[in-house]
Amino acid sequence: MGYPVMLNIANQHVVVIGGGKVAERKIHGLLEAKANITVVAPTITSGIQQLEAAGKLIWRQKTFSPDDLEEAWVVIAATNNRDVNEAVAKAAKPYQLINIADDPERSNFHVPAVIRRGRLTIAISTGGASPTIAQQIRRQLEELYDDDYGRYIDFLYQCRQWILRNVHDEQKRKELFKAIADESFRKRGDWEEEFEQLLKNVIKEEIRRKEE
Amino acid sequence: MGYPVMLNIANQHVVVIGGGKVAERKIHGLLEAKANITVVAPTITSGIQQLEAAGKLIWRQKTFSPDDLEEAWVVIAATNNRDVNEAVAKAAKPYQLINIADDPERSNFHVPAVIRRGRLTIAISTGGASPTIAQQIRRQLEELYDDDYGRYIDFLYQCRQWILRNVHDEQKRKELFKAIADESFRKRGDWEEEFEQLLKNVIKEEIRRKEE
Repeated sequence: MGYPVMLNIANQHVVVIGGGKVAERKIHGLLEAKANITVVAPTITSGIQQLEAAGKLIWRQKTFSPDDLEEAWVVIAATNNRDVNEAVAKAAKPYQLINIADDPERSNFHVPAVIRRGRLTIAISTGGASPTIAQQIRRQLEELYDDDYGRYIDFLYQCRQWILRNVHDEQKRKELFKAIADESFRKRGDWEEEFEQLLKNVIKEEIRRKEE
Repeated sequence: MGYPVMLNIANQHVVVIGGGKVAERKIHGLLEAKANITVVAPTITSGIQQLEAAGKLIWRQKTFSPDDLEEAWVVIAATNNRDVNEAVAKAAKPYQLINIADDPERSNFHVPAVIRRGRLTIAISTGGASPTIAQQIRRQLEELYDDDYGRYIDFLYQCRQWILRNVHDEQKRKELFKAIADESFRKRGDWEEEFEQLLKNVIKEEIRRKEE
């Protein structure tokens, strides 16, 4: 069973070996997390070509050689050639994060099914029991936490930043964090107005307390 | 926004700096994934003491020094002392996986809220928007995917292993994987009997096909 973590992969060097459909799918996930991607493959899908043309990644048009892994924090081997995948596994340093497609034994991490809704990320792994079930759960959770929910999470992030900058009383901060995370707040809908009202109340209370 | 991965941390060397409540919570998560844990701290909670007594981890009773990080794949600084946490961040190699409590800037990963149900793992991160919401979602999903669901996932894992060993026809494998992942299968309840029935049907069909 794996240990789930969120890697801060933004601007980190990731090498993807292979340019097929599996590689393309993994690249999309990596781009969402703003990784700095180099693809090593003699040929690539039209999808990856488009990403390269848009400046989203670097393509080294070549077969794999061990020096391709230099400086990589994360290595993903996604070719359909077992020998190449194995060569990648052998060339990787023990501390490098490595995922070999279809070879969990040689990987030190694997990529779960993922839902993203703004800043909300939910990752699902069945530990190899059933990729079908992982996708089923993903679809269920996509319905449960829709785009609107994602916008709410992003709004909470803005509020949190504002509170951390402007509210210095520890107790008040906690009150505000709790209030905006309450289901009734989310369901009200006009979050900005509601947040302003909340702030007014907190400030009013502050004035009242001072007058006492 | 982070990139969610499942680390294969079993038997990997993890160093936790700090022996308080935060450290204890992280240690529990790490133990579930069977990590090889060393705790570096002058004092530890009674909970961590019990884990040490049970041989679940190694405790180095000392203040932090940079050589404590040698050989570590994952480093977690969970002291309530900002200076110590910073010293850990500075001592870590760029490739080491490091999490500094309350300092996302100096961390290259963070730990999401997690549900475990047998082999099923669901991880939730709000990207710093609201830890309260992450816990809310965790509780919702704990109700949705209960212990019984976890047993089902574990049963699927056993079935999958059996199918991979014994069924060599690619098409039949797919059929079986699909059938056992179907909601109607899960809801039937007596999974073992149902799986046997399923196998008989697949074999029967094989005989019928051969006779045609």
